[in-house]
Amino acid sequence: MIIMMNAPTTDQVNRVMDKLRQLGLDGHSITSSDKTIITASGDLSACNAELYERMPGVDKVVIVETPYKLASREFQHKNTVVTVGNASFGGENIPVIAGPCAIESYEQLYQTAVSAKAAGAAMLRGGAYKPRTSPYSFQGLEKDGLEIMQAVGLKVGLPVISEVTDPRKVELIADYVDMLQIGTRNMQNFVLLKEVALTKKPILLKRGLSATIEEWLMAAEYILAGGNNQVVLCERGIRTYESYTRNTLDLSAVPVIKHVSHLPVIVDPSHGTGSWRWVNPMAKAALAAGADGLLIEVHPCPEEALSDGPQSLTPANFTQLMTELELLTAALGRSLNK
Amino acid sequence: MIIMMNAPTTDQVNRVMDKLRQLGLDGHSITSSDKTIITASGDLSACNAELYERMPGVDKVVIVETPYKLASREFQHKNTVVTVGNASFGGENIPVIAGPCAIESYEQLYQTAVSAKAAGAAMLRGGAYKPRTSPYSFQGLEKDGLEIMQAVGLKVGLPVISEVTDPRKVELIADYVDMLQIGTRNMQNFVLLKEVALTKKPILLKRGLSATIEEWLMAAEYILAGGNNQVVLCERGIRTYESYTRNTLDLSAVPVIKHVSHLPVIVDPSHGTGSWRWVNPMAKAALAAGADGLLIEVHPCPEEALSDGPQSLTPANFTQLMTELELLTAALGRSLNK
Amino acid sequence: MIIMMNAPTTDQVNRVMDKLRQLGLDGHSITSSDKTIITASGDLSACNAELYERMPGVDKVVIVETPYKLASREFQHKNTVVTVGNASFGGENIPVIAGPCAIESYEQLYQTAVSAKAAGAAMLRGGAYKPRTSPYSFQGLEKDGLEIMQAVGLKVGLPVISEVTDPRKVELIADYVDMLQIGTRNMQNFVLLKEVALTKKPILLKRGLSATIEEWLMAAEYILAGGNNQVVLCERGIRTYESYTRNTLDLSAVPVIKHVSHLPVIVDPSHGTGSWRWVNPMAKAALAAGADGLLIEVHPCPEEALSDGPQSLTPANFTQLMTELELLTAALGRSLNK
Amino acid sequence: MIIMMNAPTTDQVNRVMDKLRQLGLDGHSITSSDKTIITASGDLSACNAELYERMPGVDKVVIVETPYKLASREFQHKNTVVTVGNASFGGENIPVIAGPCAIESYEQLYQTAVSAKAAGAAMLRGGAYKPRTSPYSFQGLEKDGLEIMQAVGLKVGLPVISEVTDPRKVELIADYVDMLQIGTRNMQNFVLLKEVALTKKPILLKRGLSATIEEWLMAAEYILAGGNNQVVLCERGIRTYESYTRNTLDLSAVPVIKHVSHLPVIVDPSHGTGSWRWVNPMAKAALAAGADGLLIEVHPCPEEALSDGPQSLTPANFTQLMTELELLTAALGRSLNK
Repeated sequence: MIIMMNAPTTDQVNRVMDKLRQLGLDGHSITSSDKTIITASGDLSACNAELYERMPGVDKVVIVETPYKLASREFQHKNTVVTVGNASFGGENIPVIAGPCAIESYEQLYQTAVSAKAAGAAMLRGGAYKPRTSPYSFQGLEKDGLEIMQAVGLKVGLPVISEVTDPRKVELIADYVDMLQIGTRNMQNFVLLKEVALTKKPILLKRGLSATIEEWLMAAEYILAGGNNQVVLCERGIRTYESYTRNTLDLSAVPVIKHVSHLPVIVDPSHGTGSWRWVNPMAKAALAAGADGLLIEVHPCPEEALSDGPQSLTPANFTQLMTELELLTAALGRSLNK
Repeated sequence: MIIMMNAPTTDQVNRVMDKLRQLGLDGHSITSSDKTIITASGDLSACNAELYERMPGVDKVVIVETPYKLASREFQHKNTVVTVGNASFGGENIPVIAGPCAIESYEQLYQTAVSAKAAGAAMLRGGAYKPRTSPYSFQGLEKDGLEIMQAVGLKVGLPVISEVTDPRKVELIADYVDMLQIGTRNMQNFVLLKEVALTKKPILLKRGLSATIEEWLMAAEYILAGGNNQVVLCERGIRTYESYTRNTLDLSAVPVIKHVSHLPVIVDPSHGTGSWRWVNPMAKAALAAGADGLLIEVHPCPEEALSDGPQSLTPANFTQLMTELELLTAALGRSLNK
Repeated sequence: MIIMMNAPTTDQVNRVMDKLRQLGLDGHSITSSDKTIITASGDLSACNAELYERMPGVDKVVIVETPYKLASREFQHKNTVVTVGNASFGGENIPVIAGPCAIESYEQLYQTAVSAKAAGAAMLRGGAYKPRTSPYSFQGLEKDGLEIMQAVGLKVGLPVISEVTDPRKVELIADYVDMLQIGTRNMQNFVLLKEVALTKKPILLKRGLSATIEEWLMAAEYILAGGNNQVVLCERGIRTYESYTRNTLDLSAVPVIKHVSHLPVIVDPSHGTGSWRWVNPMAKAALAAGADGLLIEVHPCPEEALSDGPQSLTPANFTQLMTELELLTAALGRSLNK
Repeated sequence: MIIMMNAPTTDQVNRVMDKLRQLGLDGHSITSSDKTIITASGDLSACNAELYERMPGVDKVVIVETPYKLASREFQHKNTVVTVGNASFGGENIPVIAGPCAIESYEQLYQTAVSAKAAGAAMLRGGAYKPRTSPYSFQGLEKDGLEIMQAVGLKVGLPVISEVTDPRKVELIADYVDMLQIGTRNMQNFVLLKEVALTKKPILLKRGLSATIEEWLMAAEYILAGGNNQVVLCERGIRTYESYTRNTLDLSAVPVIKHVSHLPVIVDPSHGTGSWRWVNPMAKAALAAGADGLLIEVHPCPEEALSDGPQSLTPANFTQLMTELELLTAALGRSLNK
């Protein structure tokens, strides 16, 4: 933390230095002409710009430390590998999670699962509790959906993932699925983050719609600090002014995350673009950028989907994509985790 | 809803018309050269672009209806007035809610409340359960904070408002306060929205950090559809690329909301700008834009605040602001609700 | 400038210190555990993060100095007042510039000017060279438009302003108008900025569509550094994800600019919102936020306008607005500059 | 174009229909309960929402036609291939343009060119006229830079590209280089676009910092409508709230452009990310997304660069990247254009 002071009195400088000392931080001050610059080091969590910005004589406070600790590459140099059944996120092999936006029926999920598995998917996704912008939209099959999901997963032999939106339902959902998803709207639902930390289940943490990379890692930090280190990050597009795509898929976040954190990061090009048409090229781009996995929406009949039909691949589209990804991963020195 | 088709076959057009009919919508089609345009009207909630976008021959679907119903000015022409003790939001008089970001102690809240009331505030705010970006930041006094708030409110004679973040705590908090706040991070926490609807308490619904006006009204729609029509909207800045201010206060949202909805809308220039320095001019601008109230952070000693010190006014700043607002509201043909 | 080094060798630190010295900067280094922090002070223009970021051992470079000099409040404490005929920007009185987006005919401009002047406008605007998104849209009357503008201005007794888009036309346009406008798309057209600096005419510099406040002031710096200190800034909305309004009017920029710079700043709520419906409340909000003037589109018959009809006020709308602004400015302790 | 009217009178509908007829458009109206919807078809350039939005009874106007014509895939189904010396953009082979941000000396450019060519670059880039945010930054070697560039290009055997910023310099620069670049700040400098159209030289048109895909294609339309169809588009990152990277590289724009337009599109990961560290993964991602080429900043000694050092690759980085791209393009069924 760096505290800049503009023509401060000796007393004002001392007051800042005292406050640093009280909080166990080391402060060093340099004065040059009428500016005094104080650099503080020590325990991260005591570095709080807010405590200094209003002190008399202080002009600006710059936090140069990263605010996340457990999620940082400095804290743990080696990649975290998160394992869900046969799927491993963060290692050499790349798992692809496939499935419909919402679970609509046993038949719909089963068909999807069979074809997805045949094409090489490593996990099955499907929403039972759906956060929908409109109270009038389909809100999911809820518990019935979980039962379908569990049954289909066992039958087809794929681990399953579904979204949690309510802290009161975390335990229930954790009983049915192998991995819990925190959706984009709940990335900063800290109550929910603390609750999923308690389950010790692997967590897929989607990036918030307008979250910075730092806020996203701080959300992961909530889960890690809660004692659960099985966190996989998922880039799914951010909100920008561009309206041609539903969101703007921020693939640069992939190498950035790999550099600053040890956590695996996967990409969801379906929500990230909002149209099936861009899923194939953006899935390939995600792997070329270094992603540790993909999340792809697949529906046996997208035009009948109760949710997100326009962005779902058909089973045939998905099979074609997986064939192309096989070639691509080989060229990148990795391979699909089937 | 308008469905555009590019050189469709008769069969493709019929299929779309059939689907509209099944869902109880009236469809009319026009064909001109190789384009067919179908306009559909009827029950709003059946207008779902997703159901048509993947049908063969369909090029584009444009929803021209507003997706919110109960929140719209068309549904209710007259302004909704939400009353909390002596404070009325949506009428001629303008209430100002004041108080610290977080409740830190009885003394801190009492001092703030006394000076705020003396300056003309109509309600007292203070956070007991704080959503914080970092798990290492102060998370609030929780139940102790609520008890302080209730006691101070009664003593000073101001209705009180505090934030809810957990559906399991809604009932508890509702017992202590006069109005519940849904914070920016929870605007699309639909589970929480449904829960606060059940309390029948007045709700202050802050705009999400990157929510569109439409999504914001859809969040209000969740509460209204849940049977609670006591909703006040609060603009508090949106996320943009500009970093000089913490957020970009979108004051144009005020006249837009007043035009499309009957709900009252207030403005929070403290979070909206992130610095006490811009609170005074932006509070005035908010009222000039037509806001029905203000939410202002006031702290007896901002440099000691455990949260959001940089954006808090001192009691002296606040008193000065209220004096200026008195003159301003008179020029606007309104007056402060003291 | 602050240079942070992560576990640097003595040699690496020396190399950075040497480079600072070569460029005439004073460097001070502090080492604490494995971090070295170097603070550099001296001539602003030598503070270039790029020169240090790639040096071995350097982790991060933070520029804490403001990059603008002549535009800063530190450089000139007193407000700059820019005078154009009877209109003065930056003083107590507030001039309103009114007129159509594009000059279409003598009759159109004359009618507008007469009614605008009667309502209290201090200047007349109108575009002769129009930057249009589409090559197929009306591009302006060009030189004929300038002649109309000059004639109408003289006849009605209002100073006139028009936009320049081409460095080859600056001299010509400067012959016809009293103030030159740099439009939003040309805020970083540095060639054009250097050219208008040479005219010594007052310049209205609109903020770029996605320019930061800092970039905007750096654009002003180009004109100031070119020897022309008659610069008025104009906030006109920035690009965000919100689509209800054409742009998001960033009124917080007004108090920020007044704080960091001595230059006058006015607001254009017509382009800032894109709809005549929001012009009245946002014009009032702009003045309440502290703006030094307004730019308002007025057209005698908006539905016949060749450009920007939807955001133009009718003469009757404008007269009504000016009456309300008169009351408002009095409450703010200022008055309209008529 | 679709014009929606809310409970219009017969007279209001007729007035709209008359206006459509005057402008040569076909209008069809449908009335259902109190809504009237008019669909208009005919000559694109007459579809101007502005002309109808202020007409009495009109509620909303939706333009469903794409505003660009010559740039659209509908106008020309076959890919445009732009050839510059041995480099071909838009065909099977993928050219990589390499070079420093700014030309600093013969020695610097020559060294870069030799190593870039050895690694497989197809073209050499370098700025002679630099648009810089600060008037105090290095502005380029200007004509001396062009002479160096031409000499080095001939000596090493690579076609060269440099940026134009001033309509008065277009002819001069066109004499020295094989391709002209329109930079991000000038994407909507329509005066400059019209001028480069006249040269008949191949044009590299960078996307504006906050330009929509549609605005970008409209900028291309200016050049195409000016008689020059040798346009290559270049995605270089857009401005968002995320500050970890300098810009947010919008790779989804690549498949979108390939779908809606016949023009080639390349990607500049150097400006797109702002740091050399992310150039390698994002260059690969760009090709996987379907880009027709790359623009990469390479500098013999990035820490001495006068501009954009932090984002430049060293010759060794570049050689490594090209080796990896060779493998990647093979897996994608394409190859590098060397």
